[in-house]
Amino acid sequence: MGAVEIKVLKNILKANEDLAEGIRGALREKGIVSFNLVSSPGSGKTSLLEATIPRLLPSVKVAVVEGDVATARDAERINSLGVPVVQIETGGACHLDANMVRKALGELPLGEIALLFIENVGNLVCPANYDLGERHRVVVMSVAEGEDKPLKYPGIFHEVSAVVLNKTDLLPLCDVEVEKVSSAVSRLSPDARFFPLSCKTGEGLDVWLDWLRGELEGGSRP
Amino acid sequence: MGAVEIKVLKNILKANEDLAEGIRGALREKGIVSFNLVSSPGSGKTSLLEATIPRLLPSVKVAVVEGDVATARDAERINSLGVPVVQIETGGACHLDANMVRKALGELPLGEIALLFIENVGNLVCPANYDLGERHRVVVMSVAEGEDKPLKYPGIFHEVSAVVLNKTDLLPLCDVEVEKVSSAVSRLSPDARFFPLSCKTGEGLDVWLDWLRGELEGGSRP
Repeated sequence: MGAVEIKVLKNILKANEDLAEGIRGALREKGIVSFNLVSSPGSGKTSLLEATIPRLLPSVKVAVVEGDVATARDAERINSLGVPVVQIETGGACHLDANMVRKALGELPLGEIALLFIENVGNLVCPANYDLGERHRVVVMSVAEGEDKPLKYPGIFHEVSAVVLNKTDLLPLCDVEVEKVSSAVSRLSPDARFFPLSCKTGEGLDVWLDWLRGELEGGSRP
Repeated sequence: MGAVEIKVLKNILKANEDLAEGIRGALREKGIVSFNLVSSPGSGKTSLLEATIPRLLPSVKVAVVEGDVATARDAERINSLGVPVVQIETGGACHLDANMVRKALGELPLGEIALLFIENVGNLVCPANYDLGERHRVVVMSVAEGEDKPLKYPGIFHEVSAVVLNKTDLLPLCDVEVEKVSSAVSRLSPDARFFPLSCKTGEGLDVWLDWLRGELEGGSRP
């Protein structure tokens, strides 16, 4: 990469950081706790939301920003849960950025919600560089992806709040030791929570939900 | 994206295309048939190579270029098969580009090989834009990723030579109809071959291997 390209990239990232700080401040002011869900394609981010949101309703008011390269399929799935959702179709772009999220938030009833999920584009590389102004970044990975993803894609596992290891129902057929994934995560994010679970069977969901509820209580403190 | 950013991106892509054409010409001259394997993280590109290469040896001479954001784990796996391999660690970059491949090819005994596999970074978005000078782009996806990946990541499924649907051993536990994936692929790449297979059980590998061998015969024609 030449000097001009590096300068342009730096400018883009700096502008993104400024916008992200603005979003973070605005959400904090409204007492909204936000989660940026990142993962490979097909790890189950939308399935996690489908398993999570009905268990939080009606006591917790939730909204969702859905990011996809193409189609509004995920937003349609979330919409059927009865919560406000905005779809961002990036039209080829490989990650959400703070400006896309800022525009999407303008279409949500922020005064009425306590929890915001942002589902990023399925990509374990590029979203690592783009702060969306969220409080927590959560990596979702699937048992079927193997044990070595934290080692091979370290950037996105760095300084995350939590890692969800989804599809534990596939463990009997996959050569994956949960303990190995957990320790690989710990090396990159020593304070990260680790939630092995199955959105399909419901196994492990309670521990994840307890963590979300705990973060909400922290978030609503003055 | 502003005008400067768009211009810089166009320049990068144009330079990449020129390099890719050079690679394509050089490989053609040597009678080497090349495959650029792209997929999500954890779909099983390296496992596919581990299942494929020993079945082609010793009659077909193979070499591999391995692309990863971090670690040389995949190159070590390929090296143990006894074929020449060069690891490209992108150091954070989300895709291989033609310049990286050009340098890697300088370290391989091109005069002695007939088939070149390039394993791209695990990413279903960015590698779509970077021609590496390969003859065939092959998308590898796993049954565990669900049916809708071709619809949600159309760019990378566009004008591919083949799609491998890996991990068919997981079908009994996944809500995926092979036929639906196949028809989604056909809409984006009408001429693409479609290979459902399991690197673990060996199911379906023969059809994939027959295709590779057929392409090699075509490639060695003057």
